Amino acid sequence: MPLPQRITVVTLGARSVAALRAFYAAMGWVENDGSDETYASFTTGSLRLALYPIELLGQEAAPGDRVAASDTWNGVTLGVNVATREEVDEAFASALAAGAQAIQHPTERSWGGYSGYIADPEGHRWELAWAPWFTTFD
Amino acid sequence: MPLPQRITVVTLGARSVAALRAFYAAMGWVENDGSDETYASFTTGSLRLALYPIELLGQEAAPGDRVAASDTWNGVTLGVNVATREEVDEAFASALAAGAQAIQHPTERSWGGYSGYIADPEGHRWELAWAPWFTTFD
Repeated sequence: MPLPQRITVVTLGARSVAALRAFYAAMGWVENDGSDETYASFTTGSLRLALYPIELLGQEAAPGDRVAASDTWNGVTLGVNVATREEVDEAFASALAAGAQAIQHPTERSWGGYSGYIADPEGHRWELAWAPWFTTFD
Repeated sequence: MPLPQRITVVTLGARSVAALRAFYAAMGWVENDGSDETYASFTTGSLRLALYPIELLGQEAAPGDRVAASDTWNGVTLGVNVATREEVDEAFASALAAGAQAIQHPTERSWGGYSGYIADPEGHRWELAWAPWFTTFD
């Protein structure tokens, strides 16, 4: 069989699982059962977001490779679409209240939507977005 | 409202959208309508995987920040669960045939499953996995 067009897990290599877990909990995200000190996961639709120590993840995923420096951007963004511009503003403010770093305040986009960017405590970037053609979610 | 527990998009900053698009097409993945030379997206369940030039993505997501060096691992993995061990082996072989780099051949895991790792042409890591408690997918 081919590799199916499917993503079931996004795993963020964590420098501190405890710090990231605390941040996502402060955002109101609910962990799946089976989490422990080195592993946390959160279900979102057909996907799970997982947190796992970066040195352990690297032993499997990148043996022998250097890991990107912690003060650089990793080249990836995670997006959360919401139903209205107002929800972008509200979610952005809620994320900051939970300890997120403001990267770019919500603004109109050339592609016809409205979005802003935040970072979690280890710099993972999240785009909070409204797009007019994508306003309902599972 | 809080930031919802939801991920609608994973965007990979691409050094060459053309090269990554060609790789995912070779894997049999089907692009969404609306793709162009600088943007490609692929639907998987409740999520879209998007490819966008890393310098343009960085202008929004990481203005003023350094980008992780291209010869380092970015600290993130994307996972594709399949229904059986045999499907892991088959999907792994198919990915290599499509031009993926073999990072770690499928092996039994301490957590009770079976998985291997590949990299796309820009080093994004994919875990192809079988887990006994997760064998059906949307």
